[in-house]
Amino acid sequence: MSDPEEPLGPVDATRIPRFAGPATFARLPRIDEVPVGARAGGIAVLGMPFDAGTSYRPGARFGPGHIRASSRLLRPFHPALAVAPFEAKQVVDAGDLALNPFDIEEALASIETGVAALRSEGLRVVSLGGDHTVALPVLRAISDEVGPVAVVHFDAHLDTWDTYFGAPYTHGTPFRRASEEGLLDLHRCVHIGTRGPLYSAHDLHDDAVLGFQVVTADAYEIRGVAGVVETVRRRLGDAPVYVSVDVDVLDPAFAPGTGTPEAGGLTSRELLGTLRALADRDLLGADVVEVSPAYDHAEITGIAAAHIVYELLAVMASR
Amino acid sequence: MSDPEEPLGPVDATRIPRFAGPATFARLPRIDEVPVGARAGGIAVLGMPFDAGTSYRPGARFGPGHIRASSRLLRPFHPALAVAPFEAKQVVDAGDLALNPFDIEEALASIETGVAALRSEGLRVVSLGGDHTVALPVLRAISDEVGPVAVVHFDAHLDTWDTYFGAPYTHGTPFRRASEEGLLDLHRCVHIGTRGPLYSAHDLHDDAVLGFQVVTADAYEIRGVAGVVETVRRRLGDAPVYVSVDVDVLDPAFAPGTGTPEAGGLTSRELLGTLRALADRDLLGADVVEVSPAYDHAEITGIAAAHIVYELLAVMASR
Amino acid sequence: MSDPEEPLGPVDATRIPRFAGPATFARLPRIDEVPVGARAGGIAVLGMPFDAGTSYRPGARFGPGHIRASSRLLRPFHPALAVAPFEAKQVVDAGDLALNPFDIEEALASIETGVAALRSEGLRVVSLGGDHTVALPVLRAISDEVGPVAVVHFDAHLDTWDTYFGAPYTHGTPFRRASEEGLLDLHRCVHIGTRGPLYSAHDLHDDAVLGFQVVTADAYEIRGVAGVVETVRRRLGDAPVYVSVDVDVLDPAFAPGTGTPEAGGLTSRELLGTLRALADRDLLGADVVEVSPAYDHAEITGIAAAHIVYELLAVMASR
Amino acid sequence: MSDPEEPLGPVDATRIPRFAGPATFARLPRIDEVPVGARAGGIAVLGMPFDAGTSYRPGARFGPGHIRASSRLLRPFHPALAVAPFEAKQVVDAGDLALNPFDIEEALASIETGVAALRSEGLRVVSLGGDHTVALPVLRAISDEVGPVAVVHFDAHLDTWDTYFGAPYTHGTPFRRASEEGLLDLHRCVHIGTRGPLYSAHDLHDDAVLGFQVVTADAYEIRGVAGVVETVRRRLGDAPVYVSVDVDVLDPAFAPGTGTPEAGGLTSRELLGTLRALADRDLLGADVVEVSPAYDHAEITGIAAAHIVYELLAVMASR
Amino acid sequence: MSDPEEPLGPVDATRIPRFAGPATFARLPRIDEVPVGARAGGIAVLGMPFDAGTSYRPGARFGPGHIRASSRLLRPFHPALAVAPFEAKQVVDAGDLALNPFDIEEALASIETGVAALRSEGLRVVSLGGDHTVALPVLRAISDEVGPVAVVHFDAHLDTWDTYFGAPYTHGTPFRRASEEGLLDLHRCVHIGTRGPLYSAHDLHDDAVLGFQVVTADAYEIRGVAGVVETVRRRLGDAPVYVSVDVDVLDPAFAPGTGTPEAGGLTSRELLGTLRALADRDLLGADVVEVSPAYDHAEITGIAAAHIVYELLAVMASR
Amino acid sequence: MSDPEEPLGPVDATRIPRFAGPATFARLPRIDEVPVGARAGGIAVLGMPFDAGTSYRPGARFGPGHIRASSRLLRPFHPALAVAPFEAKQVVDAGDLALNPFDIEEALASIETGVAALRSEGLRVVSLGGDHTVALPVLRAISDEVGPVAVVHFDAHLDTWDTYFGAPYTHGTPFRRASEEGLLDLHRCVHIGTRGPLYSAHDLHDDAVLGFQVVTADAYEIRGVAGVVETVRRRLGDAPVYVSVDVDVLDPAFAPGTGTPEAGGLTSRELLGTLRALADRDLLGADVVEVSPAYDHAEITGIAAAHIVYELLAVMASR
Repeated sequence: MSDPEEPLGPVDATRIPRFAGPATFARLPRIDEVPVGARAGGIAVLGMPFDAGTSYRPGARFGPGHIRASSRLLRPFHPALAVAPFEAKQVVDAGDLALNPFDIEEALASIETGVAALRSEGLRVVSLGGDHTVALPVLRAISDEVGPVAVVHFDAHLDTWDTYFGAPYTHGTPFRRASEEGLLDLHRCVHIGTRGPLYSAHDLHDDAVLGFQVVTADAYEIRGVAGVVETVRRRLGDAPVYVSVDVDVLDPAFAPGTGTPEAGGLTSRELLGTLRALADRDLLGADVVEVSPAYDHAEITGIAAAHIVYELLAVMASR
Repeated sequence: MSDPEEPLGPVDATRIPRFAGPATFARLPRIDEVPVGARAGGIAVLGMPFDAGTSYRPGARFGPGHIRASSRLLRPFHPALAVAPFEAKQVVDAGDLALNPFDIEEALASIETGVAALRSEGLRVVSLGGDHTVALPVLRAISDEVGPVAVVHFDAHLDTWDTYFGAPYTHGTPFRRASEEGLLDLHRCVHIGTRGPLYSAHDLHDDAVLGFQVVTADAYEIRGVAGVVETVRRRLGDAPVYVSVDVDVLDPAFAPGTGTPEAGGLTSRELLGTLRALADRDLLGADVVEVSPAYDHAEITGIAAAHIVYELLAVMASR
Repeated sequence: MSDPEEPLGPVDATRIPRFAGPATFARLPRIDEVPVGARAGGIAVLGMPFDAGTSYRPGARFGPGHIRASSRLLRPFHPALAVAPFEAKQVVDAGDLALNPFDIEEALASIETGVAALRSEGLRVVSLGGDHTVALPVLRAISDEVGPVAVVHFDAHLDTWDTYFGAPYTHGTPFRRASEEGLLDLHRCVHIGTRGPLYSAHDLHDDAVLGFQVVTADAYEIRGVAGVVETVRRRLGDAPVYVSVDVDVLDPAFAPGTGTPEAGGLTSRELLGTLRALADRDLLGADVVEVSPAYDHAEITGIAAAHIVYELLAVMASR
Repeated sequence: MSDPEEPLGPVDATRIPRFAGPATFARLPRIDEVPVGARAGGIAVLGMPFDAGTSYRPGARFGPGHIRASSRLLRPFHPALAVAPFEAKQVVDAGDLALNPFDIEEALASIETGVAALRSEGLRVVSLGGDHTVALPVLRAISDEVGPVAVVHFDAHLDTWDTYFGAPYTHGTPFRRASEEGLLDLHRCVHIGTRGPLYSAHDLHDDAVLGFQVVTADAYEIRGVAGVVETVRRRLGDAPVYVSVDVDVLDPAFAPGTGTPEAGGLTSRELLGTLRALADRDLLGADVVEVSPAYDHAEITGIAAAHIVYELLAVMASR
Repeated sequence: MSDPEEPLGPVDATRIPRFAGPATFARLPRIDEVPVGARAGGIAVLGMPFDAGTSYRPGARFGPGHIRASSRLLRPFHPALAVAPFEAKQVVDAGDLALNPFDIEEALASIETGVAALRSEGLRVVSLGGDHTVALPVLRAISDEVGPVAVVHFDAHLDTWDTYFGAPYTHGTPFRRASEEGLLDLHRCVHIGTRGPLYSAHDLHDDAVLGFQVVTADAYEIRGVAGVVETVRRRLGDAPVYVSVDVDVLDPAFAPGTGTPEAGGLTSRELLGTLRALADRDLLGADVVEVSPAYDHAEITGIAAAHIVYELLAVMASR
Repeated sequence: MSDPEEPLGPVDATRIPRFAGPATFARLPRIDEVPVGARAGGIAVLGMPFDAGTSYRPGARFGPGHIRASSRLLRPFHPALAVAPFEAKQVVDAGDLALNPFDIEEALASIETGVAALRSEGLRVVSLGGDHTVALPVLRAISDEVGPVAVVHFDAHLDTWDTYFGAPYTHGTPFRRASEEGLLDLHRCVHIGTRGPLYSAHDLHDDAVLGFQVVTADAYEIRGVAGVVETVRRRLGDAPVYVSVDVDVLDPAFAPGTGTPEAGGLTSRELLGTLRALADRDLLGADVVEVSPAYDHAEITGIAAAHIVYELLAVMASR
């Protein structure tokens, strides 16, 4: 049904209504529908239904299914980047990892193994969280191959706290652990969208030591998307980057369905515009995390997350 | 991975959390995961995402996906009937039919063809609606094989109205059309759960001529499940039956997510108990229709519908 | 367009879809569409958007509009009573009274005047609340004509408390005030569906002195609708009655959209069945109160209330 | 009650609380309350409860009632334009058209006839959708009188697709059909707020041929309201214009209650500001479509739509 | 302000509106407001905000606060039992235990310690969950004092599964662990309300060995509350009992706000009536668990849970 | 447990999870937990559960509890102002005032007394509404001490209307009454965020006479936060100010949970940024009003309100 030389794309929306058909991301093929050979150089969208690392509102375990359900309207051509990502790359839905909800460290190990397996096939991975804990094992898998990486981290929070109730691996700590484990390029990491109160002034000091520059949400108010992009580009240089998007970087108006919302956030237009500016970068991988559907309404959050994933795929397909 | 002599069952809930894994009904295999030979004698759960026949609140086009999402907690053993339906029969998820949302008659033809194709493989079909219009082409496909059939129809409404805005095929008319087309055994059809106001006294007269006995929702108040069951069994004799469940047979408290709700309905316990009493019957097929997720809350309706489907599968597997 | 000798009924649902057309109750004519002469002997549905007497969750001020919006599916023939209420009686929507939200006593006076004016035209009134405070001035208007009346009062609560923060007229006190003012037939009043904790044992003593017998919600569990009906009929004798339905008589599952919900309530089927048993009574008037839409979901409560109003109209039309 | 020389305005909010009274738009008079002679030169708000042209989330059939319910807070004076639209013009609520939900072409014909009838009385029409299909017959009625028209089209989507499942008239095609039918001034049409993925690069090419310039949602990020307005004014010249507002031009945060939401949209402030800039134009008519209440929350979308209608009325009254 | 010989009761609702004042259960005093001496013989309501043992929908960590917020309408006199529980006993709100969300075993130890400490003061404990895991350490604390206990367990599920993903302590296993640890009187335990599919027929066999008799939800349909009560009383003999109420014993219509809902459940009236029949029993303690507010609507579940707690307090105060 | 020289802060989030523990604002101490001496110079957060002055959607009576519940995520350090407000000042939660819901003037008197009492202890008060009526008695209490005050009033509306249904004290009139009573510095008051239609052009004229300058919501579109701040600073001079924040100043997308929403409002980022610019001012007190939880979703509004309160506390602590 498809040209063997062309990537297998989504099901045809003029034959199968968007409210019908497969429950994969953007109605793309499942990974097992594409031969291994045809996957190389492609991108896998991978669900990580896990929220045992959550400190406040749980529920991100239902995130991957919700993002997929909210991705049914995505069409194949990105006009602003002038790219058709599903034609430029073979994009597949690799389903969900099976993660132990009662043992955080076992779950992290499963993620690292799962991502490494896909990468060994030549696939880049876009992870659907799940809480932010999942970013750590993904970075382990990538850094294991390519060494310390630059990270562009969109989030209301720093996520470089130390421990919480004695637990080292939670959704508030992935980037501290990553830095301590040597996974990060300490000169090339940046938080975008940070806002809201911290525990103390030390948080910012520690954060800088761990390798991050902070671009607050207020930077958008003052300097706009273009100003933020300029700062980020300067920080990154021309390094390949990993992009981690906690959906709570958006204001609760734009993403109510999340676990630790903070007022004063980004609009979805600002976020998508900032991501788009990475189109000339080499993206090593990406994640979109902390979508908690029980708190969503009318898929506001799910749709935002689906568009974020699409933007990331288009960026990856642009190079 | 599975014994070739045993049906392929749902994914293992102790390895893949219920909030992860395939989006099929009860996490059962997709039809393409089971060889054709192993399907014969089995049951196909088939989505019919279609609501162009709706006269009031639309949205049942999203019903199949919602019922599947709400079926993830279903476990494999039915204690009251002492049957493990997924072991007794090969049950598969046949996905969704692709139905034209802008042409009712074309959609009905697609349903008839789709159901006939599955039946020709030896599969019985449990349809996930979609609005109640979909029952007509299913009855056509079955009657085409076996002649006029007995119908047990659970619904707040008669669904034997004539036309609406001149349209002959809508969700208010399937059983009038079915009777007119000779698809029904005129001595063996029964409505259960009818209530609420009608257009006129003629409605009941016409309905009787078309082949139906009426068991109102109030019968449950007066005579209980056992009394209703006795009436139904007497009406059916020992004929094979088709079971059609409009989820609005439940009270809006138990099924808010539907298109034409009426107060004074059944509880889910009454409905499941009544269905269970059909376990010694030969079921030709069944449908669960009119689930409209935009009006549901916390999957109350979706879970009720999933349990109805499960009860029907267990009844089918009991013989 | 209508036969001058026949009541003017709802708009034709086969010409104007139920989701379109006038926003009146059951899409019936506005009172100004029916000549005064044709109204005599008829029934007026009258909105009382008022909730200044509410002690907990407010919002019943939006009740009349919500009940009307939820009444669009009502059809003209009541099969259980074999009556077409809109043919048997001229039923009109008299719109909303304009009630001062900041002055309870002024609002009560406006209600009394408004109801008396309709009654002077020969119309009986079915009131759409608003909070339960509105029952008092209605009883004043009726009793002013016919003397002390029997009251059948469906409610989770007694509503015979004395004052609250010094206020004599609130939604917790209408029946105490009515009794004190001599509006009630002290041997013919009954509460149905009472449940939940009271302030003290005195509450029940006072309540009896004020003229009420109590039929608790648990009576339904033990004796069923038939048993309750028998008790009520005995209490009423053959007196004409006023029926007051606080929607919180229903369990919160059946009526979440209300101000002071109590678990353990009636099902909508039980309530409708009990009302139906009044079909041989002379109904002086009725109210359906305490519908608070901000707490409703998918019109569960609105639809229940609309069916209650319809049942009352059918009962009124049956004699 | 009103000066015969002055337009009849909304009911008095100091006598009838905003949560009471008529269910018309902004509590304005019904069309039948104003003599025909007094209507000429006025504006009719007209409901088009129709959604059979919807390809994804249905429910816009309930849009007109929802917008009216959400318009109750509108007051009579627009400070930014310094105009009292209900004094400057006789604005009436013309109720809902009765549209066949099962036959798109019949419904379109009814709309064309209905709008033409109002226009023949000298009324301009502001349509309350309904899905976007309804814009086509409105343009037919207007173009039939005045020839090809300039269109300012606010929407996330182009709505110039060709067919969908073979259907020529759906909510994705009105402006292609309008262009093909010669209803549009090919040099004076503009889309505002476009965003999200397309089917292919051809979409934009076709769209230009059909007569449209595209102003994306991102234009607001870069150039602000003033910049967008400048572009639009240049495109329009001084032609009279028709304004079509698909509420999905707003970001889902500002309009969750719609059928095909796309992240990255306009704020309500941007949209209202852009509309306001049309105050020196001659507006031939306007529509506000795709409000789907089942997906709304707390009337966020309904209130936005009501303000959009009010802004359009004020613009029309400014000249 | 209070008589030293009388228990300190809730704040006065005629002085402090029910929507104001302390956020304690039923607006009762905090434990620190009552001298230790006055607590002996009393009852402590104790929050256990914990859901790390949840296998499906999480969120019961917010349960205690939600039940408290939903308890504000509770009044002091229980008419059916003719008892004023807050006068008969000193009832206090002991606040929330601080439980590690990332370490199940540590949390269980904290619960056991916390409950033991209150019991050592002479207080009986009614626990507000939290997921059902919390029942195990409570039983440990009680059994440690009084030996094996009889348990009346209301639940849709057996909760005697073995392990899940290798985890021995989850919300599906508390009663298996309790039985294995010798905490249960193997002849005096009973499940009430069980329904829905199981993993296999072995589940029931194991369950019986572990000490439980099963009374299914269907028993209510067939034999009513009185019949169920008779069975339960026979099972219990005159042993003191521990009562554990998983709110999912209610049908999802009556308790949508829970983690693993099953259709076909109890009504709140049936549940309250069954609990009431324990009024002549010696209750050792009780819990109400699995309230997950993110899935609740209009406090349907919260209010049901608050009434369950109140019923348990009244039962405890009746002896 | 705390250093006697240091303010008592919130409970420790690393010991007591944020979803557990006290229900006070930001989990701060109750006022009775801090000795009177230690309170002087501090700040009291005070609940005013009152909505009898509401003209449209009621429910702000539940506002204080909702804001507190939504404040649990607030951490102690404000990075943009580099201040730890709970260390710089003793901040306490003074609970709720007990306000008569049936007598507006009595309630206003109770507020004035309550605020004056706290102020006499040396505490500044941040009020949690409640509807906007509560601002008047707070201004009376403050002005009684310090004379006419400058007011920065964030609101969609002017709130300088005269009477409504004859009532002088409602949520639409506090600033007219305040001006008439001489409580305002007529050269130093400003409205920010005004938008939407007015009753007439006179409204603005009256408003100016009463002492206010108007900064519309559109000013943010044109001049940004910095431009608005500049205007406000010029208006205020260096006077001490009272800050009154009606949450409806935010767009309904950012604050759906309010009573009289208007499209076209502020983002939460704009509002927080504007408040922050007051950090060099002497704040006499502040209020955050009109949070109506029944219309909120996922605490979008509650969280915005909690951040507004936090910003105000940080501003107060900065000097």
